[in-house]
Parts: sequence; C-alpha cells; structure tokens
Amino acid sequence: MTLADRWLLPEGVDEALPEQAAKIEHLRRTLLDLHESWGYQLVIPPLLEYLDSLLTGAGSDLEIETFKVIDQLSGRLLGIRADFTSQVARIDAHCLKNNRVERLSYCGSVLRTTPSGLDGTRSPIQLGAEVYGHGSVESDIEVLSLMLETLFTAGLSDLVLDLGHVDVVSGVLSACGLDAHQEAKLIELYKAKDLPELDRYVGGLSYLSAAQKQWLRGLPRLCGGKEVLMQAEALLGDVNDSIHDAIVLLKDVSDCISLRFPNVGWHFDLSDLVSYSYHTGVIFAAYVPGHGNAIARGGRYNNIGQVFGRSRPATGFSTDVKALVALADVVVTKPKTVLSPICSNEALWQKVNSLRSEGYRVVEGLDDFCAEDAEFKLDFVDGAWQLVPVQS
Amino acid sequence: MTLADRWLLPEGVDEALPEQAAKIEHLRRTLLDLHESWGYQLVIPPLLEYLDSLLTGAGSDLEIETFKVIDQLSGRLLGIRADFTSQVARIDAHCLKNNRVERLSYCGSVLRTTPSGLDGTRSPIQLGAEVYGHGSVESDIEVLSLMLETLFTAGLSDLVLDLGHVDVVSGVLSACGLDAHQEAKLIELYKAKDLPELDRYVGGLSYLSAAQKQWLRGLPRLCGGKEVLMQAEALLGDVNDSIHDAIVLLKDVSDCISLRFPNVGWHFDLSDLVSYSYHTGVIFAAYVPGHGNAIARGGRYNNIGQVFGRSRPATGFSTDVKALVALADVVVTKPKTVLSPICSNEALWQKVNSLRSEGYRVVEGLDDFCAEDAEFKLDFVDGAWQLVPVQS
Repeated sequence: MTLADRWLLPEGVDEALPEQAAKIEHLRRTLLDLHESWGYQLVIPPLLEYLDSLLTGAGSDLEIETFKVIDQLSGRLLGIRADFTSQVARIDAHCLKNNRVERLSYCGSVLRTTPSGLDGTRSPIQLGAEVYGHGSVESDIEVLSLMLETLFTAGLSDLVLDLGHVDVVSGVLSACGLDAHQEAKLIELYKAKDLPELDRYVGGLSYLSAAQKQWLRGLPRLCGGKEVLMQAEALLGDVNDSIHDAIVLLKDVSDCISLRFPNVGWHFDLSDLVSYSYHTGVIFAAYVPGHGNAIARGGRYNNIGQVFGRSRPATGFSTDVKALVALADVVVTKPKTVLSPICSNEALWQKVNSLRSEGYRVVEGLDDFCAEDAEFKLDFVDGAWQLVPVQS
Repeated sequence: MTLADRWLLPEGVDEALPEQAAKIEHLRRTLLDLHESWGYQLVIPPLLEYLDSLLTGAGSDLEIETFKVIDQLSGRLLGIRADFTSQVARIDAHCLKNNRVERLSYCGSVLRTTPSGLDGTRSPIQLGAEVYGHGSVESDIEVLSLMLETLFTAGLSDLVLDLGHVDVVSGVLSACGLDAHQEAKLIELYKAKDLPELDRYVGGLSYLSAAQKQWLRGLPRLCGGKEVLMQAEALLGDVNDSIHDAIVLLKDVSDCISLRFPNVGWHFDLSDLVSYSYHTGVIFAAYVPGHGNAIARGGRYNNIGQVFGRSRPATGFSTDVKALVALADVVVTKPKTVLSPICSNEALWQKVNSLRSEGYRVVEGLDDFCAEDAEFKLDFVDGAWQLVPVQS
C-alpha cells in the first residue's frame, strides 16, 4: 500500500483533530449534563454483544447495518452496535428490575455498514435518552421536549419538527381488508410518494368501497402544517378508534410542544414510515434548513423489552454529536496558558501543580515552540516561582 | 435462544449501570481535564480503520488482538481498533504537520479478541497521552509523571512503578554475537523467568566467553529495587555504549520521579520484555497491590510514524478508565433533586427550566415513584411556583 493509502480513512469514517475534538467533548458534556438535569441517568452499554441480543426486538432492519465478527472464545457471532435502543431495552429489562419509570441516557460510538444520516457517516457518536415504564402522552411530550432542548442547547435554531403516528397507516390498511401483497405494494408507494401510480393502483382494487379508496388515496396527501390534523380528523376520524386516538394524541403533543417551544416549525406527514420497524406510536424527527436528513429522531416503541422477558412501554430519541458540532457554532473557552521551565526542582514542581489545580494550563518548555500562545510564564523572582505576564 | 442467553454478555465484555456509569463519566472528565491542564490536546481517532493502517507501525503483535470486518463499500478489510497508539501516530504524521512538540491525549473504547489487563476485559475504555517530536529524557519523565498523576488523581495509592529499557536486553544479546535461533530461545527463557534452564542453556553455548555467559545469566537477576541500577552498571556498564546510556537514563528518570512522587514504590526488571514490540527506549508500568497485571503502562516508541511518512520520536502511556473505577473509590456528587408536576403550563415550564440551568435536577412526576430521593418539590404558593423542601 502507498503512503497516501495509509492516510486514507474508509468512506463515512472520520477522526477529530484537537480543535474539533474539543468541541465534541464540550458538547458531549453539556448535553449529558442537560439530560442529568432532567433526571435521566447515564448508562454505558457494551460496544460488542452477541448478535442475537443486539438485533432482538429492534427489528431486522438493523441487521444489514450491523458489522459482525466471530467470537474467538465462544465461536458465536458478535455484532458491533449500530444503535443503542435494543441495548438500553435489555438494560431496563434485565438489570433495573422495578416497575417504576426509568429515565436513561447514553452517549457513545456506533458503527454502521453503510453511510447514513445528515453527513453520510458510518461512525456517529450517538447521544440519546429513553423513558421506560410510562405509556401515556406525557412521556412522549417529555422525550420530545428533551430532544428539542438538546438541539437548542447545542446551538441549533430554525428547527422543523416532523410528527407522525404509526397507527394511522396501519389503521387505514387494516380497515381496507387488504392482503399482505397489496399492503406491501401500498407501503412501497407511500414510501416513494408516487401519487399518480398510487391513484392508478387503488383505482384497480375493484372490491374496495369509494370511501376506502378515498382513505388510501388521501393518506399520503395528509402532509403539511398543523392544518393536516384537522384534515386527517375529517377524512379518517371515523375509520376506527386507533386512528382517531392517534390524531387526538398528535394534537395533544403538538399543542404542548408549541407552548413550550413556540419557535419550532411544524410538518406532519401521516403516511411517513420510519426506517426502523420497532416503533409503535408517535414518531418524530427534527430537521434543519438545507439538510434532507433528520438531525435527531425518535418515537414510542412499546414492548421492545418483551424478548428480554419484560414488556414495558418505552419512548426515546437519539442524535449524533458529531453532526451537531458540524451544524452548530460550538464555542469552547480555553484555560489560561502558562509556559514553565522543565520541572527539575521541587519548588517549581509544587508551583506548577498548584497552578494546574487552579485551572491553569501549564506546559513544560520541551522545545522553543511549546505554549507559543501562553499568557504567562513562570520565572524565579525574589526567591520564589512566580507568574509573569508574557508580552505579546 | 433462551431468555437467559439473551441477557448474557460475551466473556470480557461488560456494561455500566447508572451508579457505575456516573463514576466512569466523572473520572473520564477529571482525567481529560488533568491532561488538558498539562497541555495535552484531545484527539478522537475513528473506531474503525483500514486494517493496514491500524496495524502498520504498531507491530504484528496487535494483529491477533484486532477484530476484523469486511467493508461492504470497498471490499477491503477493516479493523476495530485494539489500541490507540498507531492511530495517534497517524494523526501526528499526517494531520499535524509541523516540527514542534505535539502533546496529544485520547479516551475511548477499544475492542480486543482475547481478554487482557487487570480484569480480563476485552472492551476497555482506554485513556492515554503521548508526546511526539521530543527524543530526550525530559519527555519520558513528563509522560511518566502524567501517568502517575493520572493514577493518583483517580484515587489510587500504594503504586509500584516497574521501569526498564529495551536497549539492555538487545545490547547484551548483540554483544554476544548470537544467531536468531539462539536469541529467540534466550528471549523465551527471559520471558518465562526460567533461571535453571537459562543457566544450563548458556553453559552449553561453548564459544561464549566467561564474561558473556555472566552477562546472559546475570540479566534476569537484575530485578528488585533501586540497587539494581548500580548492579547493572557494575555487570553491564562496560559492554557497550547503548547499555551504559540506558542505565544512565533509567537513573535520571528514577531520580526525578522520586523527587516528584516520593511515595511511589520501585521495581526494576532489566530483562523485562513488553507485550507490544514497538518500544524503542524506556518502558514502564504501574501496579497496585494484589493485582498481577499493570493498571497503566507506556514507554518510548520512536519512529512509529515512519510508515506514515514522518519519523518522529514519541513517548506515551495508557490506562483503562473502567479498571480505575473498579480499583479506586470514585465519589460523584449528585445535584439537588426537585420533584415537579407535569409541566402543562408556561409558568411552571419556565420555572423548571431556570432551576435546571441553575444546576438542579428537576424530574417530572410521571409516576408516584419519580424522584423519591427529591430534596425539594415545586408547589404553587402565593401565585407562583416555588421550591418547597420535602420532609424525609
């Protein structure tokens, strides 16, 4: 391999040099502190697990995204995590055995076999929060609020929130009595937003009533601002209870979030289908202008812990700290820098250590260029080591 | 797979639940701040690299420790990092192009195919620091001092420092004119500390002089306290310059470190051979009582960046944050906790947010058990939301 090859990083993989690394570390701390101030407790799941545990409950969509290795010790297949959600579900199900509400947060690297997200990364630093053990709208609102607070705290503005509910699509499909093949075809058309082909296909389903055809055709047209919820109630409110309840829930969520975050823009897309198949209720994603991919997303995924022996309601969100740093203007304040001679005597060593513990950055002068940005140097004046300002 | 199987983690892989995770996060921040106060800049190398880059320069010893996956995008072999050193060397060589001293630090997960270290882990959180571009004893002393300060800051005491130099073994072997097979046999015997077999084997090398036999037999017996350095000078000081210089260097290092850290215990083992083959000068490791594996280790490894096109002197150390938390008594101070009603009106939402930004942990009462440990609750008193102490 050539020199240039050795320098190259794989596609979708990046490294952070000092300036960017300081921003990532600063934001990581700020956001984990924010989550703690909301009552969320940090957990650190392993980077590596048995593949079965890692994919269980999260849906098979994650399987293709997960790097797999053979365990030399057990001969079994292991996976490098591509997502935290099933890991946190396992922790809630297995390790935290009580019936109370658990608020958990996490931050760490994940790896994905293919590029995704806002910046086409395969190695995001995923940060997120989840509430286990609460099934009503209040926890959806709390998690969505924390997601928005996370993004604002990171320094983003002009956010647009995309809100939906998985029961709307599934309620309409089940009310039309379609077979599996027809449902799959319609989901494909909804994902592609291919309205002319949708109209043609629905027109050909001759045994459907006129109302049913109207539901199927109208669903992907239910997208836009808050007026969509009233249109949805008019078109679908009487189809069945689950659709009606979903629309009421979306209205409750959007009313409360608008009160808390009046500057957030809104977009509803009631035929939207999320990428991971584990969601069971409200789903949401936040966008910033000029980027087609979400900067953060989440939703409700009840019963994900069932395969671990504990079925609990759950709702959560996640984002990528590196993507946040790329979008936001993170400012890191540097400590005051002091240039010190090499500490070859005890008095100087003590002085240097006390300055460091006071918050100074004290750099030994190993070469002439060390601490060129120093505001102070240490000089031996009047029998003691003293801070002397450096003329710039 | 059974339920219990799904709960199991692979051997040498662990997770941190809230109490332990808080300690890990606290220690991680404290130690990275310490490194910053010494002038070390954080870098964040990728978790995943082309295998060639990852193993280049670090010696083939790492190859068996590295998990490998196929890149679906390029068809090439990728490795999950098992060590940071060659990554940081690549960053110094490729990204930070100047001839000045660079002080870099890092902290992140690594994965290893087999268990190692103090607690038999395969997923340590490696934290370390490295100095590039300085080849003299001052940077060895600086890095070793920072390693000890790191361990003391983590809360360890009773440290024993193991100090050696790779030139001693290699100098004696080359001064005896042995062939490769004989050298390999001797290194095996030194590693096994098999003194009777060593004496027998050396006795059979009939063309060696009496002095040469004495060097080979005496080398593994040069272990113990500081008196070893004088014994080494007497036995090996005249063999050649590189051995003499190594012994002088070890004396300089131990004198200065003793001045800075008078409470550190000492152990010298001049036939010690480190696990990774990339070291080129002084090598060191720190031990705590009752544990046979080092809690931190490091040394000089000049020219590791050569394969990346930039040969520079380098010295550094690393440790495992999870192992430190297991050994030390890390105390995390919790913020004051406030139980709040669900924020369904603007005044309460504003009050909750201002308390959170003041450093309180404010938890919405999603169920009756939320914030059982709360010191305060929010009540609506005299027309405003106010903090009220909770009777315990």
